Amino acid sequence: MPEKIILDCDPGHDDAIAMLLAHGSPEIELLAVTTVMGNQTIEKVTRNALSVARVAGITSIPFARGAERPLVRAIETAPDIHGESGLDGPMLPEPTIALDERSAAQLIIDTVMAEEPGTVTLVPTGALTNIALAARLEPRIVERVKKVVLMGGGVHVGNWNAVAEFNIVIDPEAAHIAMNESWPLVMVGLDVTHQALATPEVAAAIAAVGTPAARFVGELLDFFGHTYRDAQGFDHPPVHDPVAVAAVIDPTIVRTIAAPLTVELTGTSTLGMTVADLRAPAPDGCTTHVAMDLDVDRFWALVVDALERIGHTDF
Amino acid sequence: MPEKIILDCDPGHDDAIAMLLAHGSPEIELLAVTTVMGNQTIEKVTRNALSVARVAGITSIPFARGAERPLVRAIETAPDIHGESGLDGPMLPEPTIALDERSAAQLIIDTVMAEEPGTVTLVPTGALTNIALAARLEPRIVERVKKVVLMGGGVHVGNWNAVAEFNIVIDPEAAHIAMNESWPLVMVGLDVTHQALATPEVAAAIAAVGTPAARFVGELLDFFGHTYRDAQGFDHPPVHDPVAVAAVIDPTIVRTIAAPLTVELTGTSTLGMTVADLRAPAPDGCTTHVAMDLDVDRFWALVVDALERIGHTDF
Amino acid sequence: MPEKIILDCDPGHDDAIAMLLAHGSPEIELLAVTTVMGNQTIEKVTRNALSVARVAGITSIPFARGAERPLVRAIETAPDIHGESGLDGPMLPEPTIALDERSAAQLIIDTVMAEEPGTVTLVPTGALTNIALAARLEPRIVERVKKVVLMGGGVHVGNWNAVAEFNIVIDPEAAHIAMNESWPLVMVGLDVTHQALATPEVAAAIAAVGTPAARFVGELLDFFGHTYRDAQGFDHPPVHDPVAVAAVIDPTIVRTIAAPLTVELTGTSTLGMTVADLRAPAPDGCTTHVAMDLDVDRFWALVVDALERIGHTDF
Amino acid sequence: MPEKIILDCDPGHDDAIAMLLAHGSPEIELLAVTTVMGNQTIEKVTRNALSVARVAGITSIPFARGAERPLVRAIETAPDIHGESGLDGPMLPEPTIALDERSAAQLIIDTVMAEEPGTVTLVPTGALTNIALAARLEPRIVERVKKVVLMGGGVHVGNWNAVAEFNIVIDPEAAHIAMNESWPLVMVGLDVTHQALATPEVAAAIAAVGTPAARFVGELLDFFGHTYRDAQGFDHPPVHDPVAVAAVIDPTIVRTIAAPLTVELTGTSTLGMTVADLRAPAPDGCTTHVAMDLDVDRFWALVVDALERIGHTDF
Ligand SMILES: [Ca+2]
Ligand SMILES: [Ca+2]
Ligand SMILES: [Ca+2]
Ligand SMILES: [Ca+2]
Repeated sequence: MPEKIILDCDPGHDDAIAMLLAHGSPEIELLAVTTVMGNQTIEKVTRNALSVARVAGITSIPFARGAERPLVRAIETAPDIHGESGLDGPMLPEPTIALDERSAAQLIIDTVMAEEPGTVTLVPTGALTNIALAARLEPRIVERVKKVVLMGGGVHVGNWNAVAEFNIVIDPEAAHIAMNESWPLVMVGLDVTHQALATPEVAAAIAAVGTPAARFVGELLDFFGHTYRDAQGFDHPPVHDPVAVAAVIDPTIVRTIAAPLTVELTGTSTLGMTVADLRAPAPDGCTTHVAMDLDVDRFWALVVDALERIGHTDF
Repeated sequence: MPEKIILDCDPGHDDAIAMLLAHGSPEIELLAVTTVMGNQTIEKVTRNALSVARVAGITSIPFARGAERPLVRAIETAPDIHGESGLDGPMLPEPTIALDERSAAQLIIDTVMAEEPGTVTLVPTGALTNIALAARLEPRIVERVKKVVLMGGGVHVGNWNAVAEFNIVIDPEAAHIAMNESWPLVMVGLDVTHQALATPEVAAAIAAVGTPAARFVGELLDFFGHTYRDAQGFDHPPVHDPVAVAAVIDPTIVRTIAAPLTVELTGTSTLGMTVADLRAPAPDGCTTHVAMDLDVDRFWALVVDALERIGHTDF
Repeated sequence: MPEKIILDCDPGHDDAIAMLLAHGSPEIELLAVTTVMGNQTIEKVTRNALSVARVAGITSIPFARGAERPLVRAIETAPDIHGESGLDGPMLPEPTIALDERSAAQLIIDTVMAEEPGTVTLVPTGALTNIALAARLEPRIVERVKKVVLMGGGVHVGNWNAVAEFNIVIDPEAAHIAMNESWPLVMVGLDVTHQALATPEVAAAIAAVGTPAARFVGELLDFFGHTYRDAQGFDHPPVHDPVAVAAVIDPTIVRTIAAPLTVELTGTSTLGMTVADLRAPAPDGCTTHVAMDLDVDRFWALVVDALERIGHTDF
Repeated sequence: MPEKIILDCDPGHDDAIAMLLAHGSPEIELLAVTTVMGNQTIEKVTRNALSVARVAGITSIPFARGAERPLVRAIETAPDIHGESGLDGPMLPEPTIALDERSAAQLIIDTVMAEEPGTVTLVPTGALTNIALAARLEPRIVERVKKVVLMGGGVHVGNWNAVAEFNIVIDPEAAHIAMNESWPLVMVGLDVTHQALATPEVAAAIAAVGTPAARFVGELLDFFGHTYRDAQGFDHPPVHDPVAVAAVIDPTIVRTIAAPLTVELTGTSTLGMTVADLRAPAPDGCTTHVAMDLDVDRFWALVVDALERIGHTDF
């Protein structure tokens, strides 16, 4: 039986690929997609999500718009990485589906409460704002959710400051809320996503799929490759967000360790750092897990396979 | 035309009196009552709110249960002041009305969006958790609300630490959110509420009303007087929350000054302090106002008048 | 018997007047003068201190140069208030005495250890950097000092941010050290020094003294009056530092209250705030005292009297 | 020509071995030893330093006592690791040399100013309190010191909290001062010292030296091995401090990388973390360097060689 997930995202190049991976994987049942400001404003990333839905051929699940700003801090976006649209590079097709009228947080709540307990996995690949709002609005979702598998943070590396990652640092209070709730949580952070590089070999494998959606991904990677080289010095761009989806499809694709995990909210040099205590084995009952290694080949094979399964879409 | 308000409270002795004042005042149209953890757990304060509704004879407006914990921090209650029930002292009658099914935040949003723009005043007399959640879930309420008149904080005095007040310090991030939104906001803090003392003369004037509701208030003040003496050394208890309602009934009852206002979120000795910059006249467009003085006699006259108007209720 | 003091200062217009007051008062025996960066760089304020010594006719006590930067933070000076020299306005005479070779901290230590225990009062009128260094280098001075009477901080008012004063906020860690040591400490802050305004009547009384030193003071006040009007909107300039000296000459000139006192080191809006806990009477053994009111007339009478006693100096 | 060093330490088992390594190495000229509270109180670690001097046969250099407490924070010691004396395990011989009368900071200043510029290396193996005081008291030492090679901190690991090391976290402000000065600085932290384990093979090699000093080291390692197993779960104890001395003897024994480096002073979960920015090659002129790898065999060979050169000492 496929894993039911809600994808909460800010497309964003890698979010778009995460959505394609989720939709194309037979191991995933995508229940809903929600959006959150981050890579760009909520208007832009929401429009992008709907465009990607068309690219993927997603027609029958709800999409809801979420938080337009972080809980406490001012909004910060990432045009240096994702461009002015948040998804620069390919032509973005006109959306063909309409937004759900509910807020992202409400759609998350309604979906989790409607499904059987312990069956829905939340997959946030942006700031944790919607997740935090949902948990505070309807605390019963916390024990009803199967687990949270998020892309964000990192233990030994940062990208937005020396030790913090973008998704976490732009709304650290929301991340603190998500990580300190009692649901099982897997943090898929930069330690592993910096291994998920779109090398020329990867690009070639994707191009070989030969479909419009695969071409779309190729154009995303091309743009993303240039901005990551310019802004962060990468030879090949790290494709963060689909790694979280892959870790739901096949949890063995990452090596995780249980460790107490929280988010630094007051540090001068460490604001937004995801602090994992690795000094000793995690205490019994520790619900937070950190991904440390990635099976890179299997990861990319999942992406290529999903694109093949999506096949020819019309946009 | 009376002022339409939503009372967001954590009854709480002074919250109960605030509700009675709002219900009994011809200048106020009470649209809804929402609850928030604080003086006691959400279960207790919500039950108390419904009991007070019966004491007041409120039957036809929605009551909704709100946040069971602060946004980011762990919950902290005040049994030393308000007792184990949150409303120790009088016998609490069984509620006769049922809770609305919506969350407090959703009821606030729905009410504000249903009324004419610029007509609804929010009156929070507890932690700002529901208010913050509502503003983040539905940002359009911010420009639609007429103003926020809250009890909390203080400029030159604290009660929960040297410089912070309970309603603010138990959820400082929520207070930060409320105070940094663009709606007009009046902070009715300890600077003025420490002037609203229930002296024997005040108690006598309330007793002279002679109704069951007035007796109920008398028993509240009696309990509250003892705990405030023991816990904070007051000769007569400060009755904070109805001052915010009074400042809606008659804004001239408090002297306010416009000043930039925020909440300290990272201080070691100052966490939860409401920081007003009084060094110079407020800049044009400053939306935050701080109450500095109270017309004590007129304040108590409003309370007595409201009790007289409520008259004989059956509980 | 006069009170033995060490004046630790950053002249600075009001520091200069503090030095003149200390030198001219029969109730004070000025043992040494030490300097600290603050109003201007250490080079400038040290040169200014020596020039003021000539104005005052001080010839026989050691002057030592102190800290060129705060303990932890970057240096911040106040040219908007004190001008480029740190003492703009009057012509500054060439110094006629030489600096002691010791550092300020070492001179403070040596002086305190050489005098009888319990006889030396430290009077810092700048950042507390030298005082903190001395206490850490030679902890025995703490119980040997009679008391510390400092100009800095404030309880209900700030000048460098909404709630912090310049001397404290430029080296908050040093102030934290000074305020948390076990010596008796009196904080003469903005609550009282904002009452010590150099009105036209004050200026006239000083002019009437008719000496070169009094003329020098008049020129200081004239410059200081302009900058305080422009930078902080004062009609007449507050003359902070001599109030601390006056509080040694006659402790009854200020009304003080004992209160726990510390310095906020991590606040976002409150960095450098002097946090006094005024909620209840101070616990037994509380060593920190806060000045709340000033006898303004007696204060200025002391200044005029000191100038008269200094008489005609040659510069 | 041997490297001139000042060893600033808190013996401490590994400090004692560091002192023996420095004294026994032909590549080092030990100019002075200074002490700082840390592993135990200043009285205890100073007495220990003098005892170790006797064990090592050090008779002709000054030893000075330093800070009895951190700059800003309360003192914290490590009896769980180093025992009640700070050097539990072996019998400690009565000292035969007397303390210098100067403070540690003053001795550091005097020594650096007396030697040729660029010739003295500071080797702190405890809290940075003395180093910070010296730099603030006499800023000219900063450009005169050759470099600072300190044991403390870590990039990817902590021992006193999840991400901070003891020497840094007990006086983070002092460490911040040391790391933000312009002298070249090498941080020899837990990343490398957790590789310097005293395995049975190491213990055997030391025992084979057969001298009283080697026996003393053996007894230190025996005690230290037990406490590290109990307190931190190590199979064999990491012997931190001599690695810093070894990195002076032969800088190639560690692999270092240049990286911006500072100390977190306000973090809730990260207080005292040494934050190195490893995201990109260090900017030109970066003066801070982080040790990442250790040549373990060569390190222990240096220790054994030093013990052999020390030979038979009488205690
Ligand atoms: Ca994303
Ligand atoms: Ca309340
Ligand atoms: Ca001054
Ligand atoms: Ca050590």
